[in-house]
Amino acid sequence: MQHSAIREILKVTQLPEVISFAGGLPAPELFPVARIAEATQRVLSTRGAPALQYSVTEGIPELRRWIAGRLNAQFGTAFTLDEVLVTTGSQQALDIYGRIMIDPGDFVVLENPSYLGAIQAFDAYQPEYLTVETDEAGIIPEALEEVLRKAPRRPKFLYLIPTFQNPTGRTLSAERRPKVVEICRRNEVPIFEDNPYGELAFSEKPPAPLIAHDGTGFVSYTGTASKIAAPGLRIGWMIVPEKTLRDKLIPAKQGSDLHTATLDQYILHELVTDGSFLEDHIALIRKTYGARRDVMLSALKEMMPEHVRFNHPAGGMFLWANVDPRIDTEELFKAAAAANVAFVPGRPFYPHNDRRDGMRLNFSNSDETKIRIGVERLATAIRNYGAGIS
Amino acid sequence: MQHSAIREILKVTQLPEVISFAGGLPAPELFPVARIAEATQRVLSTRGAPALQYSVTEGIPELRRWIAGRLNAQFGTAFTLDEVLVTTGSQQALDIYGRIMIDPGDFVVLENPSYLGAIQAFDAYQPEYLTVETDEAGIIPEALEEVLRKAPRRPKFLYLIPTFQNPTGRTLSAERRPKVVEICRRNEVPIFEDNPYGELAFSEKPPAPLIAHDGTGFVSYTGTASKIAAPGLRIGWMIVPEKTLRDKLIPAKQGSDLHTATLDQYILHELVTDGSFLEDHIALIRKTYGARRDVMLSALKEMMPEHVRFNHPAGGMFLWANVDPRIDTEELFKAAAAANVAFVPGRPFYPHNDRRDGMRLNFSNSDETKIRIGVERLATAIRNYGAGIS
Repeated sequence: MQHSAIREILKVTQLPEVISFAGGLPAPELFPVARIAEATQRVLSTRGAPALQYSVTEGIPELRRWIAGRLNAQFGTAFTLDEVLVTTGSQQALDIYGRIMIDPGDFVVLENPSYLGAIQAFDAYQPEYLTVETDEAGIIPEALEEVLRKAPRRPKFLYLIPTFQNPTGRTLSAERRPKVVEICRRNEVPIFEDNPYGELAFSEKPPAPLIAHDGTGFVSYTGTASKIAAPGLRIGWMIVPEKTLRDKLIPAKQGSDLHTATLDQYILHELVTDGSFLEDHIALIRKTYGARRDVMLSALKEMMPEHVRFNHPAGGMFLWANVDPRIDTEELFKAAAAANVAFVPGRPFYPHNDRRDGMRLNFSNSDETKIRIGVERLATAIRNYGAGIS
Repeated sequence: MQHSAIREILKVTQLPEVISFAGGLPAPELFPVARIAEATQRVLSTRGAPALQYSVTEGIPELRRWIAGRLNAQFGTAFTLDEVLVTTGSQQALDIYGRIMIDPGDFVVLENPSYLGAIQAFDAYQPEYLTVETDEAGIIPEALEEVLRKAPRRPKFLYLIPTFQNPTGRTLSAERRPKVVEICRRNEVPIFEDNPYGELAFSEKPPAPLIAHDGTGFVSYTGTASKIAAPGLRIGWMIVPEKTLRDKLIPAKQGSDLHTATLDQYILHELVTDGSFLEDHIALIRKTYGARRDVMLSALKEMMPEHVRFNHPAGGMFLWANVDPRIDTEELFKAAAAANVAFVPGRPFYPHNDRRDGMRLNFSNSDETKIRIGVERLATAIRNYGAGIS
């Protein structure tokens, strides 16, 4: 997507009269502002100097230990702090992984559609993309097998978001997960698993991440505090079991920003180890976003014309809709913006820009009333826009 | 320098019995911990949600306005917030500038010796280095002219720290500054000016930065809050007057980490606009570091053998010493470490590793007593080590 086109979308979404389903923002009214204020006071009154000083590139040990421990407790893995690298948001994990792995012209395998921020990060290193078709159960193993078999050269890695994906909200089924790992391992194509939304399950716990299916260092993983604490802290992380890869990522991280903000690392560690705070807070996010998803789904069902199809994500922040294939959602965006509602058109999420009928709808950043009004505006815009084609 | 060699130095400096002149750390006892705690409370109690949310890539407008305004007030420039990009420490400025400017095999011009962190950041983009000799008044204009004239292809840029340089503590003289700008402009080689230490003048105000000598967008500039507030906030900035360059740097920054930690940007802005706090605080740093420099100089003069020469920096955090050219300071480091004192050997600061007799000595991070004891240990180590060669 043109940088200018994205700026155009941003400009629309910042107008106060516009209801935006476009952004990927958490609900700010849920930010634990008071808890973060208390955590900061405790950090500064007890560890002020180290929290404000330069620190080690890998991240502070107590936070790295907590990151490994949380995944271990949830999925029975046995990662240690040595395998964890704190990053400046998971965006930095995408950037430095791309920098280490990609030489110009290398192949990278992506889900179709895939996360736009990852495509933008990898683009800096000039790969070519191979895309694998997906359905409601995520990436299709047979399609993956086929793409790897036909690849002119061995791809450098497969990047995917298996759980509550951005942009589609889809989850790779438990049954497919070991298959995807097995296919990649057999073809010697490492996996880079991005899991920003895994904590945001509305009902059942999602299947274990791919890295839990692998004991060979073949899967690298990135997670983030942005969706469970606050994105303004810019704390993400990588779990990289393979030492030779870690030994390249750490200098790349060091060259990028020396280390992630020390104060924010201390604040986050203080926050997430503050009794039952984290579990209570994640429960609140799940409940709120789950209710918003329900409202969006029922409004879509009630108001949208027949040709609009949409899925039922089990967690995360997004759902995915398709309109009549004769409609280009980038054109539709303009009509929607005129009706004071915004979404992200699907095309830029497809690495080859080969589909134009998708829409990403965010439900985390609008309250229930706004969601109903926004869907109503969008339905009207689609009806008016589509009147010419039906 | 081998990554492993740097780790070896770090390991030594972390031993409690070692007095370290090796690091480039500010004095943690001067960190304005209470002020930062108060600033954080004000930010979170009045702007909690925006301070914890995702934000724009360029940085929050109020901080960008303050950055431009401070330079304008000090040097009579007229930069606007549009020309400012907030970065995750100035290390990120080095990284994204290198990423935009350097293709593999391109020439980059550096002072000899130059800042190690810049060399490491640029190395990721595989340039070749042309080095320009320096003396106590900084980079030598005639030598610069000669290097540019002989360059096989036009170099992509000149990178330098004109004021209280790292590693040498030297300052490019007022008289040479317009010459350096003129030579580069005539040869169409842009300048990337790094100014982390400019605020740390012990007596006279240093000459205006190179960017103040240029009204054509030919000089890009990076600064940092690390030396005047706290490095743990990881806030740096760029001033980039040339719009076409800015339009490349902003997406590079976005791909790297989306934006710099929002909370830290708000905290810093609150801190630096808090009445006379900043001026008082910088005055305290100047006084403290100036006194430490004086103690180090008088100890060196008193204790060092004849063949050790050292300079008299007018500000910053480092001084530079040379030993008898028959001594390799990387070898000397081991003897010093055994005597519980550390420094950084000079070789890695020379892009072509062509000098081995330099030492960087940091005076900001040790109190006056430790400085005297450390210099005494170092002098003894040099005497013992050098006994064989004299």
